[in-house]
Order: sequence, then structure tokens, then C-alpha cells
Amino acid sequence: MAKDLVNKKSKVHFEPDNVDIAVEPGANLLETAIQAGARIYASCGGAGTCGTCKVLIEKGEVATTRTAKVSAEEFRQGLRQACQSRIVTDLAVHIPVESRLETAVIDRERKGITTTNQQIEALATGWRFSPPLSKFFVELPPPTLRDNVSDLSRVLRGLKQRYKLKNMTVDFDVVKKLPQALRDSDWKVTVTTLVTAVERGATERRRPRVINVEAGDTREKHYSLAFDIGTTTVCGQLLDLNRGKTMAEGMDYNGQISYGADVITRIAYCQRPGGLQKLQQVVVATINGVIKQLLSRGHVDREHIGHLTVAGNTTMIQILLGLDPKYIRLSPYTPIATYLPPVKADSLGIKVGEHVYLFTFPLVASYVGGDIISGIVASGVHQRETITFYMDIGTNGEIVVGNSEWMVTAACSAGPAFEGGGVKHGMVASNGAIEEFDINRSTLEPVVGTIGREKPKGICGSGLINIIAALLEAEVISQNGKFNTDLPTRRIRKGDDGYEYVLAWAAETRTGKDIVITEVDIDNLIRAKAALYAGCQTLVKSVGMTCHDLEQVIIAGAFGSHLDIEKAITIGLLPELPLDRFVFIGNGSLLGAKLTSFSTDMLDDARRVAQVMTNFELSEDTTFMNNYIAALFLPHTDSSEFPLIAEKLARRAQNRSKKRVTA
Amino acid sequence: MAKDLVNKKSKVHFEPDNVDIAVEPGANLLETAIQAGARIYASCGGAGTCGTCKVLIEKGEVATTRTAKVSAEEFRQGLRQACQSRIVTDLAVHIPVESRLETAVIDRERKGITTTNQQIEALATGWRFSPPLSKFFVELPPPTLRDNVSDLSRVLRGLKQRYKLKNMTVDFDVVKKLPQALRDSDWKVTVTTLVTAVERGATERRRPRVINVEAGDTREKHYSLAFDIGTTTVCGQLLDLNRGKTMAEGMDYNGQISYGADVITRIAYCQRPGGLQKLQQVVVATINGVIKQLLSRGHVDREHIGHLTVAGNTTMIQILLGLDPKYIRLSPYTPIATYLPPVKADSLGIKVGEHVYLFTFPLVASYVGGDIISGIVASGVHQRETITFYMDIGTNGEIVVGNSEWMVTAACSAGPAFEGGGVKHGMVASNGAIEEFDINRSTLEPVVGTIGREKPKGICGSGLINIIAALLEAEVISQNGKFNTDLPTRRIRKGDDGYEYVLAWAAETRTGKDIVITEVDIDNLIRAKAALYAGCQTLVKSVGMTCHDLEQVIIAGAFGSHLDIEKAITIGLLPELPLDRFVFIGNGSLLGAKLTSFSTDMLDDARRVAQVMTNFELSEDTTFMNNYIAALFLPHTDSSEFPLIAEKLARRAQNRSKKRVTA
Repeated sequence: MAKDLVNKKSKVHFEPDNVDIAVEPGANLLETAIQAGARIYASCGGAGTCGTCKVLIEKGEVATTRTAKVSAEEFRQGLRQACQSRIVTDLAVHIPVESRLETAVIDRERKGITTTNQQIEALATGWRFSPPLSKFFVELPPPTLRDNVSDLSRVLRGLKQRYKLKNMTVDFDVVKKLPQALRDSDWKVTVTTLVTAVERGATERRRPRVINVEAGDTREKHYSLAFDIGTTTVCGQLLDLNRGKTMAEGMDYNGQISYGADVITRIAYCQRPGGLQKLQQVVVATINGVIKQLLSRGHVDREHIGHLTVAGNTTMIQILLGLDPKYIRLSPYTPIATYLPPVKADSLGIKVGEHVYLFTFPLVASYVGGDIISGIVASGVHQRETITFYMDIGTNGEIVVGNSEWMVTAACSAGPAFEGGGVKHGMVASNGAIEEFDINRSTLEPVVGTIGREKPKGICGSGLINIIAALLEAEVISQNGKFNTDLPTRRIRKGDDGYEYVLAWAAETRTGKDIVITEVDIDNLIRAKAALYAGCQTLVKSVGMTCHDLEQVIIAGAFGSHLDIEKAITIGLLPELPLDRFVFIGNGSLLGAKLTSFSTDMLDDARRVAQVMTNFELSEDTTFMNNYIAALFLPHTDSSEFPLIAEKLARRAQNRSKKRVTA
Repeated sequence: MAKDLVNKKSKVHFEPDNVDIAVEPGANLLETAIQAGARIYASCGGAGTCGTCKVLIEKGEVATTRTAKVSAEEFRQGLRQACQSRIVTDLAVHIPVESRLETAVIDRERKGITTTNQQIEALATGWRFSPPLSKFFVELPPPTLRDNVSDLSRVLRGLKQRYKLKNMTVDFDVVKKLPQALRDSDWKVTVTTLVTAVERGATERRRPRVINVEAGDTREKHYSLAFDIGTTTVCGQLLDLNRGKTMAEGMDYNGQISYGADVITRIAYCQRPGGLQKLQQVVVATINGVIKQLLSRGHVDREHIGHLTVAGNTTMIQILLGLDPKYIRLSPYTPIATYLPPVKADSLGIKVGEHVYLFTFPLVASYVGGDIISGIVASGVHQRETITFYMDIGTNGEIVVGNSEWMVTAACSAGPAFEGGGVKHGMVASNGAIEEFDINRSTLEPVVGTIGREKPKGICGSGLINIIAALLEAEVISQNGKFNTDLPTRRIRKGDDGYEYVLAWAAETRTGKDIVITEVDIDNLIRAKAALYAGCQTLVKSVGMTCHDLEQVIIAGAFGSHLDIEKAITIGLLPELPLDRFVFIGNGSLLGAKLTSFSTDMLDDARRVAQVMTNFELSEDTTFMNNYIAALFLPHTDSSEFPLIAEKLARRAQNRSKKRVTA
């Protein structure tokens, strides 16, 4: 009987996913939800500090440690942080809308990719269509006693005679399957070769590697995959290497998102026993899911995938390859390697043929990864003399300044504000997120627009910028980000976190609660934009320039595509430059992965760019710190950095004074 | 109850090994003996055709198919072919001395290696001591914020600064262990690099590969292994790469010997379900056993082995690497590849560190393998203008004619006679084998000497040659190999296989039976020597020469070392040349494996030799067939090939006629 009791599992039901799971009592509720496949978001990785994983216990009992993230009222209603709760009895759990990962955003982002691809392919120019992966068909004379060279020699001779290919290395697995392939096909086979990035600056020494042999003529089936492994999302493309065409696109949240929103929480998770293996497995599972989407959408068989090109930040790539990211987080922030040898994709658990190599982009530093190199290559920064500012505002904020001659780069610890993190009602850019915003100057009433035109649920990053810019221009907030509490509107009020502005009343929202923006939120965004702007200033200053010297600004990242440039300049996020200097490229990382799949020239470029780039560690740089402090203002404490905005704000203030005087 | 009966296992006890095993009734007795670890020999691989695996059933019952290899008398005594027997009840089995593998021979061969090494290292000359495996120690500055390049970049930079090493490729496993190794050792590490053979004729393009990194300075522990994987024996050496010294030698029978004596039976066995895997496993087990011997004798830790160089014939190498040798046996006899890429040794089950690569010598054809290339390189044939005849008489017979300019090669199907196969009382060259032999011209009584000075047990290959030469010179047999039945001696008698000569009476032998040499045995040896001689003739003729033009003869193989040159010439096995032109090099294959472990020059030589060598397929060559038929005589039908021997035999015949006349 006692044994029975011990062994009795708790049944847990999750809504609205409608999934069930049986686990040992005492199990962590967040982990149980992830395990059951419920869509739940935990931006701090289960540390209990973000409050994003709140769930409603509808039936049954949990043992919870209550933190400040759950109000007394919420606690009374049955809301619990899943990460802080252990299962006691059978449970029925509802995951409220604000704690859920929504998939709608993905379609929006997919559309973003497609659109911006067309733009960008004109940015990087001059590359030949010459994929690193090639297929060669040879019809060989069968062996005779007078010509009984080895099977492999026969194939290599055929490749040399017909295609002038020589000096090739051959994978052992090819040797293994060669005799059968030759004899199954009457000595007609298709050989797949791969050119991998070779030593720096020695492109002429490149030796193709024979990675596969197939019976018969399979040249028509010639595909590869390009991936961007982001901290938040994993995006993939299926590429037709005969036609230089994207066959299908797919995307999903990185499965690691349930273990933390940013690279720092992921690295911390890797330090737990089995943590690295776990995160490696979940991102591989995500990749496998996206591959499945791609194959099905493109009507392509798995066996015809011949290569896999992956761009991602340093942490994502190290975790994917099972390399402990520990030292990325510890000063002086060293990655393991900037050039990672290609590995067999199946050795990582990726479901492709055993001949498929996974190529990862070279990287620059712990916080400037292959995704940046990929984006730079895709946008052709290295091809032009134009002084370009490249910024990728994702979960991290990486910036590059340079041209074909030189490049400097830095990672700015912008924090998660642009993705809705650290913001009271912040959320990722999915349905119900407030993105568009304006304010009636007379009534101070807001006009809000949400993604998907649904009832408001929260605020996404681009929405936050739009809101703050509008509040600033309407003088609802001052240039230091504080509310003008004298204004005649009940929208401005004192809340738990100080003053706030009500964007939507409870009755109008999907959460049934008021959605507000607080002074703390504004302060967080000011810090984030200050970090990016100060980073840019530090880089341009290092080469004796100012932000006004930038001739082009390329904005990459899913977030960037939805950015209102004027408003971003207004708050001091982007430098004050003519609007025609700004270009959006969407997911530059994925685009670069695609272009290098199509062209070995671009592969060489990636190497060269990684070599040429000089990394600045801003975190302990005093110039940066001074720039940062000076940027903690809307748009900036130094009005010469934003002369037009400063003038506009000053004019408005004068007008107000005049009005007052008039009044 | 019924279930119990079905599951009851039979207990089988083997003597003199004193090992027990429990198996399902119905199991094959030979396989059971192998599984139990009893030392048993089955030269036909369990096909029932050789009769070498006869055992005595002392207790219990087996179900046996009786073949002609077991006489009625033997059957009555309880002798059974293990391969033809299935286990019925519990058993006590005695493996008689003639069915056992003895280890004494191994010590003899080991001594052989040591002696001949000293000889041979003078043969191959002019090579620098520059092992393909190198260790480099670097003390690196720890990273700082101003110098936080990746761990790998730091190491590569250190190697470049201190040792001028560049353009290296790096194994992924090295990347994986790098961060820990660096931080465990205060940034002082030892890096192991390997130069693998690269594309033909492009030595300047060789790129060292970083295969290992260890914390601290481990340069002192720098070892590699050289192996010869023979059809019959596996020989290994442990090499100190700092001092160019052999630390230990080890040897064992190839575990595959229980599955067939020659490559043909092994290839046949590979065609059974699981057969290839089985043979691969057993040779790996043998290699692991020899490695254990070597490490223990050399007092070296397994982890300090950095490389493994293997020479072997094409079949042995393909099986070792898990490559089906099927097409080696089928006309037109194609091997899978002549240049096999290096593979990780541990992926084959070889117990060494996971960084260790196994390098196999390039090969020429299905029956001229890397062991021949290795032997040629070791003996420096390719370095001299001297027209050299190189022969390796092992389980197969491979020959090479050539010099630094050109080389031709062929495999002669000599058959197993030189290793005691196909000979009624033949045996491998182990204790009790008759090796020395002379005959009293008056009494026609023999004088026999055995290996280990033990009671005679059988005849080994070199003994067979000595016996036949002596019988020929004493005119006991005629030049066509038939007995002179008129002679007044009871030693010559009619046996089951025609006429025979009794070498030792039952009372004097270890088997308790008469040991004889039969006309069939002599015929077998004549065929074997004819194949080799005809092969040599065919090769020299192909380059417009005769056997008398050969300026040097190098005899490799364990068998060769015990060959009496004069007697081998007498029977027409070796060409009639001055004795000082003959050199023994013992195990040339192992020696080449050792030299290439010490010198990348030799590694290059091996590639060049394999490329330069022209293979002749003798099996369907009419010139060879004519030469072969002409050589089926003692020493040869064409007395101009052996003028001195012909004269000597003629003189003796005259003397005899004179004596008769006198009498």
C-alpha cells in the first residue's frame, strides 16, 4: 500500500492546449508544462524573476513560493508562477493569454523575409552562382581485367576526365557505399562534392570533398538548407541549388525559449547538470520541426538534402554544437573558436542524411556571432566604400560600422526591452500586441493599433518606441522620461511601479486588465536605446568620425522590419540622418546563410569579413560608459547629436509657452 | 517443465585450455570452441574441407557429419571435425596437439623482427626523422578584455608565433575539449598535430591537422603504434616518437584464423549474414590484445598513443575497416579504393584515445596490398637503380620487380603450401615443426631438426622446401617430383595418397603417428613454387629482361626469414643468382609501418610507390600460364634458367651411372 502511494503519479491537464501528462508529485510545474508540450513562455528561464510564466490553477493543489511578481490579488485568484510551483495533487491548469507563445507572429515574420529578400539581393552584388555543394554525374566503363583499378580510382578518374576535378578528399562513408552504388546502377553514379571554407586567404587551395555517391543520375534532386538560429526564433529555408531558388520557408520559436529569454539565462541553464545537453536537444528538435515543415512545403525528400548552413549568435551556435558556452558569460568573454570545423549534422541529432555537413559561419566574439557576419555579407557592406552602420536588434543588439576597407563591431547590452522584456505589459510581437500608437494632443486620449487587429494584450518592442515617441512629442513625458503629472487626464495615474499611462482600459483588452506603460518601462527603453546609440557613437569615434558621417544604415532583425524610423530617431535610438539612408533587410542572418549556400564567393567573403572585423568590448570601456550616460535622455543630452529633433521639441515647448501666455 | 527443457544449456569443457562454456544444444562445436577462447585452428574456415579442426570427444554426445577427412579408425576413437559437429549433451572435449594454435612460434618471429630490423634500416636510406605525428607545447598569455580572441585562435596564434605553424585544420573534438584543457593548466597546453598523406605529388600542400590538446607539457609522452595485419598473424610495435625507438613488440594470431586460413575463405565468410562484422570484430580483438601487450611491455599509458599506422593486404584492410571484400574475389578483382582516407581508430573498436587516427597504406590492387607498398618503402627498392626482385611469401605470394624508375607487381596464387596448408602433415611454423632436414645418401635415413627442438609434430613451409631439396639431391625423388620406388628403404612406401616417405616413425613423434611427405604434398609445393617463379619470369619478361638480370632479391615475410636460399634455388623457387644478392628483411610490412611513423618522407614515398607500380593480373595471362607449366619441374623444365643446378643434378646422375657401372 505504502509503495502504491509513493508511485502514484499526478495527472495534470493544461488548457487551452488541451494536453495531459502524468508526473511524479513534487515535479516543477513549468518543466511539466514544457514536457507536456503546452505553449508557455518563461523569459527568465525559470528563475522566478520575470513573472511571465503565470498560470491559473483551476483544480488541485500546488506548493508555491510566492514572489513579488504575483500580487496578493492574483494569488487569491489562483494565479501562480509555474516555475515556482511544485505539483501536489492532480491538476487542471489554464495558461492565460499573456503567458502564452503565439504562433501568429511567425507568419508575419515569414512574410517579412520574403519581402525583404527581394530588396536585399540587390544589396550584396557581384557574386557568381556557384554553390559549395555540387553534383556530378559520371558514366563509367565497367572494370575489366585490363582495367581493374579500384572503384574509387575509377570514379575519381571519371570526374577528372569529364569535369577536370582533381585533388579531392573523400569521406570514408562514401568509400563504404561506393561498390554497391556503382554496381546497382551499371556504373552510372552521381557524386556530391562540398567545398568547405578553407584556410584564410587561400581560396585557390580549396579542395572539394566527396561527401556522397548515389546510384544513377540524381542531379535533379539537389537541395540544401539555410538556417538562422536565433535566441527567440529559428528560421529555415529550403533551397534548390540547381535553380538558385528558395523552395520553402519555415519558422518556429526556438524550443530553448522555455528555458530563458536571452543568452545569459540560457548559458546559466547550461551550467546545471545535463543543462547543455537539454538545450542542445531542444534546439535540435526545433530545427527538426522546421526541416519537416520545409520538406513538406517544398515536396522534397529528406535524402536529397545535401548541406546545411547555419548562422546564429555565438551562444546559440556553441549550444547547438554541444560546446559549453560558460566562458561567453565570464569576463573577458572568450568564445571557444571563431572558426568552427564543419560537423556531420546527424551527429548532432539533426534528421538529414549521414553525409550532410553542417557549416556554421565564422564569428567575431562572444557577443558578435556568425549571424552578424552572415548579415554583413548578405547586405554587401564589405563590397562598398559607403560608410555603413549595420544594426541587428534582436534579443541582443549587435552593431557594426565600416565599409569594404575596415569594420568595427560591438555588442550592446540593450536588454530585452525591444522584445517586450522588462516591460510591465511587454510581449513578443504577436497577435494583440500594441504596435501603432498616436495621441490626441487635446484630449490626451490614445489611438492604438494592434498586430492582427485583435483586442490589446500587451506592448511589443516597436510599439514601445512608437508610444514613447508620441508621448514625448505630446509632452506627456519629458525628455528625461518622466510623466507630466499636471496634465488633465485620468490616463496618467500613480500605479504600483510609480506613474503610468493607461493605454487601454480593462474592458477593451483581451486580458481583462488595464494595459499601461510605466515610468519604469520608459526608463528601461531609454537604457536600451542609450546602449545602442552609445555603442554606435563609440565605434564611429574610434575611427575619428561622428554619427552624422554614416552614409547608410542597415537595420536587420525581425524587430527592425517593423520599426518606424522617424520615431526611432525621435527617441534617440537611431542617429539623426536623412530617411533615405536607412534600409531594412529583415533577417540578414538567414539571408546570408542562403547566399553562401548559393555562392562560394560569399563563403570566402564571410571568412574575410570575420577576419577584418575588430571587436570592441563595451562593457568595461569608459568612453562607452560616458556616451551611455549622455544618451540616457530623449533623444540625447547633447542636442548637437539630434539637432532637428532638439529644435522640433524646443519649438513645441515654445508654442506651449506661447499658448500658456496666450491663455 | 517443457520450457525448462528447452532452455537447458549444454556445458562444454575444453582441454588442454581448461575453459568452460554453456551454450544452447545444437550449437556448432567449432564456433563454441572459438567463443570459449580455446586455441583451435580451422584452416578452411569451418567448411569441413581441411580436417585441421579435429577434436576428441572425451565425454558426451555430438551430432556430426562425417567427411573423408576423418578416417573410420579416427571416428571410432572419438575424433570429430569440430566444424561438422553440433552439440547434443554436456561435453568434455580435447583439442589434440595437431589442431592447436601454438604460441611458441610467436616468440621466434618476434626475435626475427628485431634482428632483421637492424639489417634493413640500412636498406632504406636518406629519410629524415620527422614523424607525421608531432607534439607542440605552448605557454599562452591568459585572455584579457583587450585580448579576448577565442580559445582556439589563441592556441593557433601561439603555434604560429612559436613554431611558425599555420594553415592548420582542427578536429571538432579538439574544439570541444579546448576550454577546459586551457583553464586546467594555466594556459599551458600541448597540441598534437598529424600530417596525413595528401593528394598525390602535392607534398607542399600538406596541412597539419590538430588532433589533440592536453593540459600541461606532455611532450615527453609521445608514442605511436605500427601494425602489420597479416592473414595469419598480427604484429605490432610501440614506437617512441621522441627517440625514434621501438619500445615494445607484440604479436598474436589473427583471430580470423579460426574462420579460414586464407583471404579467399575469409572473403567467403564475409558473405554470410553478419560475417563481415564478425571478422572485423575478431581482428579488432586481436589488435586490442596486441596493444595491451605493447602497453604493458613498454610501460606506456593508453592515452599517450597518438597514432596508428597499419599495413596489410587488401582483404585484411577492407575487413578491418568494415568494407565488404566481395569484389576482391570476383573477376576483374577490383578493390574498393587504393587510397583509403584515415579513420578514427576508436570508431572501429580499437581501444585507443578518440583522437587517434588509423592510417592505412595505399595499395595497388586486390591482391597487391599496402603490406607490399610498406615493404618496398622499408627496403628502399624505390631509392636505388639496382634492378630488384622483392617477394613476400606469406599466406599469399606477392612479387615486385623494379627500381627507382619503374615497378611491376603481381600476386601469385601460390597457395598455402608455404605455410603448411594443403600438405598432409603440414603445419604453421610453430614448435615441433620439422624445419631442418638432411638424408644419409647411403642408408636413405633422414636427419630431422624441429622448431623448439621438440618431438616432431608436422612439417612447416621452410621444412618442406628443405626436405624436397634434399630428396631431390639424393635422387629419392626425380625432377618431376615422383618417388624412386626402386630404392632399398622402407621409408618409401605406398600410403593413402600414393607414394610417401616416412620422416619420423610414430614412436618418435608428438602425435603418436608416422609423419610422412607424400607425392601429393610434393606436387602441391611444386605448384606453389612454379607460380612464384613463373610470376617473376612474367614480370621480368614484361620489361625485356630475364631472371638472371636481377641485381638484388629481397625476401620478406616471416616465412622468408627461415628459408635456406640454396635449397630454395635447388627446387626452383628462387632464381639462380649469386647468394650475396639475396637479402632477408623479415616482416617488411611492419618495418614500413614503423618507418613511415618516423618519417613523413617515407609517407610520401609510399604514395609515390603505389602510384608508380603497375599491376599484372596473372590469373588470366597466357604468358604466365606457359611459364607456370614450364616451371612444374624441379628446378625447371628449361635448364637454362637454372644452369648450375641442372649441371649439378646431371653430374650426380652421371656419378650414379658410373657407380652402377663400377658396381
